[in-house]
Amino acid sequence: MSGMKGGALFLTRLNAVAAEIEALLGRLLAVAPTEDEVARPGRLLEAMRYASLGGGKRLRPFLVVEAAALFGVAREHALLAGAAIECVHCYSLVHDDLPAMDDDALRRGQPTVHKAFDEATAILAGDSLLTFAFDILSRPDTHPNAAVRVGLVLALARAAGLGGMAGGQMLDLAAEGRFAGGRPERLGEGEIITLQAMKTGALLRFACVAGAMLGEAGAEKRGALDRYGAALGQAFQIADDLLDVEGDAATLGKAAGKDAAAGKATLVGVLGPAEARIRLAQLVAEAETALAPFGKDALWLKAAARFVAERRA
Amino acid sequence: MSGMKGGALFLTRLNAVAAEIEALLGRLLAVAPTEDEVARPGRLLEAMRYASLGGGKRLRPFLVVEAAALFGVAREHALLAGAAIECVHCYSLVHDDLPAMDDDALRRGQPTVHKAFDEATAILAGDSLLTFAFDILSRPDTHPNAAVRVGLVLALARAAGLGGMAGGQMLDLAAEGRFAGGRPERLGEGEIITLQAMKTGALLRFACVAGAMLGEAGAEKRGALDRYGAALGQAFQIADDLLDVEGDAATLGKAAGKDAAAGKATLVGVLGPAEARIRLAQLVAEAETALAPFGKDALWLKAAARFVAERRA
Repeated sequence: MSGMKGGALFLTRLNAVAAEIEALLGRLLAVAPTEDEVARPGRLLEAMRYASLGGGKRLRPFLVVEAAALFGVAREHALLAGAAIECVHCYSLVHDDLPAMDDDALRRGQPTVHKAFDEATAILAGDSLLTFAFDILSRPDTHPNAAVRVGLVLALARAAGLGGMAGGQMLDLAAEGRFAGGRPERLGEGEIITLQAMKTGALLRFACVAGAMLGEAGAEKRGALDRYGAALGQAFQIADDLLDVEGDAATLGKAAGKDAAAGKATLVGVLGPAEARIRLAQLVAEAETALAPFGKDALWLKAAARFVAERRA
Repeated sequence: MSGMKGGALFLTRLNAVAAEIEALLGRLLAVAPTEDEVARPGRLLEAMRYASLGGGKRLRPFLVVEAAALFGVAREHALLAGAAIECVHCYSLVHDDLPAMDDDALRRGQPTVHKAFDEATAILAGDSLLTFAFDILSRPDTHPNAAVRVGLVLALARAAGLGGMAGGQMLDLAAEGRFAGGRPERLGEGEIITLQAMKTGALLRFACVAGAMLGEAGAEKRGALDRYGAALGQAFQIADDLLDVEGDAATLGKAAGKDAAAGKATLVGVLGPAEARIRLAQLVAEAETALAPFGKDALWLKAAARFVAERRA
């Protein structure tokens, strides 16, 4: 599958998962508290819904769903795991946008949570979305096997925490010299790759591996999805940095060139756009190669790798 | 057991658990990354250690350990679950202290995390401690039975999230009228009890129930610990509010009377100190009664209820 028609079919499939995730998160974040909850305070719930509903490509849930489909996992299980990962993604956006972090006023063309509500509510909404991800993953609805659920919890905690996404954000802030007495550092290629593998790569990679975990896959196939996810994560970040250099504010829904202006450490900055584009193509090829054990079944994951590399927003 | 001698024995036992938790958290938050972690950025790890080591009564881990001991649970399992709950407690302190929240400069007589480091680091350290709690709980070391571990994850997520601790903090900020256009509300007794059951009660209660879950206890004994935990949680909060009115800054390590000055909704404010003291005694009696099914084995949990009510700091 390739060319315009393949791309259109892929987008239809991506949007279908996005619609299912939207509906599912809407149900999970209902007004009525679940058992064990005393109440769901209105303002907090509203901020969590604002942060997680009504937008986003839902790429991470798509990766879970398509990876899980390789093993015949029930779609409702994959969607719940995908919704959990999406909650972590949305929490990270809410906290990264805070004045003390990246200080962004717009996200997907809309006011960020601390602008639409206030800073305290944004901090709590992020905290609660992160917590909610573990709530969702550990529910029996997500998988009948407790060992699978707790395995997902552990892997998500590793991908999101100190040694993953949160750690990557710390390295990113440090590279910009954002602390008292700090100065921007000029990171080398290896350091940038580590930073990005943590900040954005770990969660994308986990989304792919989660599909294999839900399918109780063996080490070989799980390893294949791990390699696919790692290559896709790197490709995602290079494409994002290229977009930041070349995109325009209208398509992105945020200020273009902002990262470059902030002196953010990116591979595009180190390699230059032409070399970065070559690297991007290599990573897409690497992602596709990793999927060899799945043969033709992996066509949508292959399309996802190309989509990530070619997207314009 | 009662009187001065009983109190001293209790403190010895409490301090022993505190020392074990301190050592355990120190090991868990080691410099070397665990498998699945890319790296542990130094500044973030340092902030997490600053926030979680070197202080605190470790009451929640103590409750886990003593409740678990009723069922003959291996102490190392109870300590790991206790360490996870302590990470959630410490994260909540870091975020609550932020300028956008309670804006506190001191905690246990030391600069708060955002003062000792900076706001961005404090936000990330809190996020990472919360995430780390789920990492710890889901490790096979914490309990051999995956169903027990994932049950603990779910219960912790419920206790800490939207319908628990984070939701309680939201209600507390709302009651103070901290949002644009907001005004302080005068909460009634029932509303204050709900707020506190969420903000501080849910995690204390979970600590007690976690002991029963680790012991794979039946519904009756689990329910007994749940009732004990709920009464203890309420007693804890009333004692805290009495201390705020009557304590002095030197013993508390924070500004006394600050909550009253901020117009915080407390039962002491609604009932008056004399009536609050009667309520406190009733709650201690309730906590002790709930422990009846355990007979003499529950003496340390009974002592914990008295300690919570009588503490001076």
